[in-house]
Amino acid sequence: MSTPKRVYNFNAGPAVLPLEVLQQAQAEFLDYKGTGMSVMEMSHRSKEYDAIIQGAEADLRELLGIPSNYKVMFLQGGGTLQFAMLPMNLRATGSADYILAGSWSQAAYKEALRLGTARVAASTEKDGFNHLPKNLDLDPQAAYLYFCSNETIHGVEYFNEPEPLAGVPLVCDTSSDFISRPLDISKYALLYAGAQKNAGPAGVTVVIIREDLLERTPSNLPTMLDYKVMSAGGSMHNTPPCYSIYMVGLVFQWAKKIGGLSAIQKNNRAKADVIYKSIDESGGFYRGHVQPDSRSVMNIPFRLPTPELEDAFAAEAKKNDLIGLKGHRSVGGIRASIYNAMTIEGANALVDFMKDFQRKNG
Amino acid sequence: MSTPKRVYNFNAGPAVLPLEVLQQAQAEFLDYKGTGMSVMEMSHRSKEYDAIIQGAEADLRELLGIPSNYKVMFLQGGGTLQFAMLPMNLRATGSADYILAGSWSQAAYKEALRLGTARVAASTEKDGFNHLPKNLDLDPQAAYLYFCSNETIHGVEYFNEPEPLAGVPLVCDTSSDFISRPLDISKYALLYAGAQKNAGPAGVTVVIIREDLLERTPSNLPTMLDYKVMSAGGSMHNTPPCYSIYMVGLVFQWAKKIGGLSAIQKNNRAKADVIYKSIDESGGFYRGHVQPDSRSVMNIPFRLPTPELEDAFAAEAKKNDLIGLKGHRSVGGIRASIYNAMTIEGANALVDFMKDFQRKNG
Repeated sequence: MSTPKRVYNFNAGPAVLPLEVLQQAQAEFLDYKGTGMSVMEMSHRSKEYDAIIQGAEADLRELLGIPSNYKVMFLQGGGTLQFAMLPMNLRATGSADYILAGSWSQAAYKEALRLGTARVAASTEKDGFNHLPKNLDLDPQAAYLYFCSNETIHGVEYFNEPEPLAGVPLVCDTSSDFISRPLDISKYALLYAGAQKNAGPAGVTVVIIREDLLERTPSNLPTMLDYKVMSAGGSMHNTPPCYSIYMVGLVFQWAKKIGGLSAIQKNNRAKADVIYKSIDESGGFYRGHVQPDSRSVMNIPFRLPTPELEDAFAAEAKKNDLIGLKGHRSVGGIRASIYNAMTIEGANALVDFMKDFQRKNG
Repeated sequence: MSTPKRVYNFNAGPAVLPLEVLQQAQAEFLDYKGTGMSVMEMSHRSKEYDAIIQGAEADLRELLGIPSNYKVMFLQGGGTLQFAMLPMNLRATGSADYILAGSWSQAAYKEALRLGTARVAASTEKDGFNHLPKNLDLDPQAAYLYFCSNETIHGVEYFNEPEPLAGVPLVCDTSSDFISRPLDISKYALLYAGAQKNAGPAGVTVVIIREDLLERTPSNLPTMLDYKVMSAGGSMHNTPPCYSIYMVGLVFQWAKKIGGLSAIQKNNRAKADVIYKSIDESGGFYRGHVQPDSRSVMNIPFRLPTPELEDAFAAEAKKNDLIGLKGHRSVGGIRASIYNAMTIEGANALVDFMKDFQRKNG
């Protein structure tokens, strides 16, 4: 095979994966460890596949320090299915509180409303979701308090969890900053993450749930939406998305090998710093969407003086093999997503390009 | 890379995939057509990915001759999520009829009951699901008539569709004989198939639905379970299982290249014939589970004189690189699954092994 071309991929998700993970998957694509089969061709009940899924869970538990009273599930349907599974399984007291800090927490809230009662504990919508909410209006009877730790579209990120009232479980969509830094899992009752940002390909969602929450699941939910059934079956109530779980497992191995979440956090911070610095030192040519204290380390949305310049920026960047910089269709502008697998070289290449583009167009 | 080892893979699913499909996916794993990205790393909204998913749908439409008044969706959650989505979306008249011809139609019926009212139109359970039901007790008010065209575990297959009463839509789980032979799609209101038998890796379900059925979807279903939303979004309401869809698309291309579904049917029939012949001519050493007129071309369950011999058969076969022959844990015995990608050489190798095993143990 000829040497493959690789670009700097700033896609918001599905997104860049670690090159050595892709190389390993490619090498064993036709014959996994002498089995004579691709992982795609293996029975999910085989001992070889059992080692893959158990290994993925064990590595994730080690990476995140998941306590033993939490279950880990590998489910399908993305974050969007979790928007429904959460209230369907957990809304025992009839209502739940949602913090709206961007499009994704808003979407989760809308789904909870579609299926029952939910309250807004805070919203920064009137400010265009450009900072984290400061004051919470909390319901002491809420079934849970929901937040999204990183808003992929608006680029705000929580570095300290919001504080729920005593006895109210904290629930988090961590899709786009999953395994990007250490977390104290014991603060959470449930976390979930669609894999297609930091952890792997689209098609698998990791759900981490404190065991006592499983007691809330009502009877007669659709089986595939029942946390209790899915957890009891060890993510094997039916055929799981086997290959996506294998890829996620390879990413967890890689994350351990490069030093775990503290090392990854340091690297992510360094990448974000050079890009934010470049924005802040551009004399207003580049304008960050988010207030400095709420800036995401994962997704950096920014504007240029005109939409025409933004289009030119994204197109010119693409010609220079800097891919995926166009902002989300709902908000426009530019967005640089710099997940775990983005290298510091990629971040520096973007900064060099930004300076060059400003010189030519500023 | 060294030459990969490849076995004859008789797994029931996930199952053998065409070698040239795997080779193509492997070759473009790091760099899809000069994009500098894996398909796993691509935005699902990119023009490159759009060409992949649109191409997969177009090839499937050509293969199966899907009329223009049918929608095609690529969903998550496997057949098991369809067990719930069907009654939740389509049970407008309050009840639906189910034909029980094996474990999978039975599981679909149980899920429909869990979520509401359903009737048994026929069942062969008392005969151990060893033949297709002959007489149907049909409800003229049924919201739909459900059947499973191939029972993966019990090995019975429909070659002619059951006849619903006038005006009652016919709904089919075709997971394990999907794209194994030509079908007259116009006889069906809805068909679905988990991909992990004939069509690709686990993690994507193909749903083909006649457009008028979409009018039945009630409001306030969980969004991801709403056929109307998923269809309107072109399987892109949220991030779809991108890589699994890409693989399914490669399999559809391969199926076209080798002559389409008529050629595939002929090949499948030839493979099944040599194995059934070997069973029938074994003088009772091998005993097929299913009556001859109901025998599946895809999954061939059979017994040996004792469970000990069955264990020895599966273990000895594995040593000879004939993999996945142990019967389903719920029924025991031996099962040979010979999906589209199984070669006639593989079927002949199994027959040779069967003869040899009988010589030594008969």
